[in-house]
Amino acid sequence: MSELRKDPVIDRWVIIATERSRRPTDFLEVSPPAARNSFCPFCPGHEDRTPPEIAQWGRTENARDTAGWQVRVVPNKFPVLTIDGNIEPRGVGMFDTMRGVGAHEVIIENPRHDWDPADATAAEMELVLGAYVHRINDLRQDPRFRSIMVFRNSGTAAGATLEHPHSQVIALPVTPKNIKEQLDSAREHFNRKQRCIYCDILRQEEYMQQRIVEANEHFVVLCPFASRFPFELQIMPRLHQHDFTAMDTSQIASLAKTLSRSLHRIKVLLQAPAYNMMLHTSPALHPRPGRPHYWGTIENDFHWHIDILPCLTRVAGFEWGTGFYINPVAPENAAEFLREVAI
Amino acid sequence: MSELRKDPVIDRWVIIATERSRRPTDFLEVSPPAARNSFCPFCPGHEDRTPPEIAQWGRTENARDTAGWQVRVVPNKFPVLTIDGNIEPRGVGMFDTMRGVGAHEVIIENPRHDWDPADATAAEMELVLGAYVHRINDLRQDPRFRSIMVFRNSGTAAGATLEHPHSQVIALPVTPKNIKEQLDSAREHFNRKQRCIYCDILRQEEYMQQRIVEANEHFVVLCPFASRFPFELQIMPRLHQHDFTAMDTSQIASLAKTLSRSLHRIKVLLQAPAYNMMLHTSPALHPRPGRPHYWGTIENDFHWHIDILPCLTRVAGFEWGTGFYINPVAPENAAEFLREVAI
Repeated sequence: MSELRKDPVIDRWVIIATERSRRPTDFLEVSPPAARNSFCPFCPGHEDRTPPEIAQWGRTENARDTAGWQVRVVPNKFPVLTIDGNIEPRGVGMFDTMRGVGAHEVIIENPRHDWDPADATAAEMELVLGAYVHRINDLRQDPRFRSIMVFRNSGTAAGATLEHPHSQVIALPVTPKNIKEQLDSAREHFNRKQRCIYCDILRQEEYMQQRIVEANEHFVVLCPFASRFPFELQIMPRLHQHDFTAMDTSQIASLAKTLSRSLHRIKVLLQAPAYNMMLHTSPALHPRPGRPHYWGTIENDFHWHIDILPCLTRVAGFEWGTGFYINPVAPENAAEFLREVAI
Repeated sequence: MSELRKDPVIDRWVIIATERSRRPTDFLEVSPPAARNSFCPFCPGHEDRTPPEIAQWGRTENARDTAGWQVRVVPNKFPVLTIDGNIEPRGVGMFDTMRGVGAHEVIIENPRHDWDPADATAAEMELVLGAYVHRINDLRQDPRFRSIMVFRNSGTAAGATLEHPHSQVIALPVTPKNIKEQLDSAREHFNRKQRCIYCDILRQEEYMQQRIVEANEHFVVLCPFASRFPFELQIMPRLHQHDFTAMDTSQIASLAKTLSRSLHRIKVLLQAPAYNMMLHTSPALHPRPGRPHYWGTIENDFHWHIDILPCLTRVAGFEWGTGFYINPVAPENAAEFLREVAI
């Protein structure tokens, strides 16, 4: 019989419907072939085909937009938001609107077109994570932005349009619904219990030992109790930390390895599925009088984490209509399969 | 420049990013071929390949599970929820869970395997809508169920696994997040203004005349102000009505034609894309002391509606992470294209 589970942070239920299918091999057909682009604007030597670079790591000579970089950050050539201007919020009758102001950047993670974070060296991954930290810290300086989302779409089914390994950064002038729900719930939990809700989840999971894929000195990798999707993974710092950019060098070195290992487990078990990866960190900090609490210091009531969602099932009318998700693989089983992958 | 828009009912923003693509033909490549099933368990003569029927319309002889029906309702053979038993909510440490109790039914809409509601006769569609009403009213009698979702997945990309035209009904023992958000917002609006928020949206749209695709005596079809997806459609009764099953026969006859026409517009304009359709009606009514308001009578603070979401874009990391959506077609443009389709 299936089971309904409520996400411990936000008010979202999922149906764990294990009668429908259960083994990793049941999902392999869904994974489509990777897109092949004839010309890659992200490969070294094609630096003139992207907008001028914002940052790079690895190139030692003073020559912007040339090869030699290890990680390179450029504005998205087709940005969904524009960096210039003010947001100008206004009402149109009963409707609310503002100009599409924000940042939309691309982090080209490696010069190699066929590079894969699932098989990367720790040094390569550390550079990528360093670029995440750099972009978050830089964009936070802009008082127009309230929330910064770093994410990675891998594979056509995950929405990737270019094959060359890259992450994206979007800075938003409003706090998005999903982030606000997490922040509100975490704050309410802290106010009631004087503890971080994510820390409580970690302690609960460590006690139950059913959904943990890996736990090391710095990080815990687990399949969330109310996973929406089969083989969904979450990476959290073991000790409380609200801000991704607050990691020290030993944590970054550890995360580089932990993240690569996690992606490697998914790659091997599910034969390189498309996936989405999202970094949730505390929002931009611009304390000003009159701003709601989640704008101020939130050391206590957020806990950064990375979500990895393999694209194995389709979202259909039921999910769109209700916000419920149907997950055919219990996270306990997913964790067991993922743990068993040889690293 | 793109524009941020907030959904007037729930706290969800979308980015209307019209720089990215704008014409209906830009989306045609995404639409995949329909799945072909060698054997169809929903075709007449195969009634023994489904669980025993719950209801049927059209068969006059007293012979269950035989051909002769025009519309047939059966339990889903692979249900995500089980009809028997109690929900038994319980806590597991800090987590919340209950047994997967609920109804999961299939409404086989027509005996013809290649029938399409976009080209149906009014009489055929009235039978389908009558089946919706019947199933909602029947399942509402069950005090275990709080919410009933009727939806239709058409095409592989929309999550349909069988090609034969069908809708699905899922009755849930909890009020899902999306429904609760709509109900809470509509109630708050009513408490503040003594008006239904959906009625206000309709009046605003009728005043602006930018996003209305069709308005007739009984119904308004529009592209919502904060559409998440290109060519998203919403059908609402023009006059306030909280409950889908409260329609009289002239309304049902009108909805049959309005719905067919709306699906026809999408089919012609976008060359028969996959789509999801969802019916949002007021939740199950079991007034009991101590139950929250949205369990009681909600004549004032809900307004039933049908959402139609063509599957033309992919949901990726940004959407999963933030709950923001990026829509490359302004609903004003979508409405204009849809209006121009010859009916």
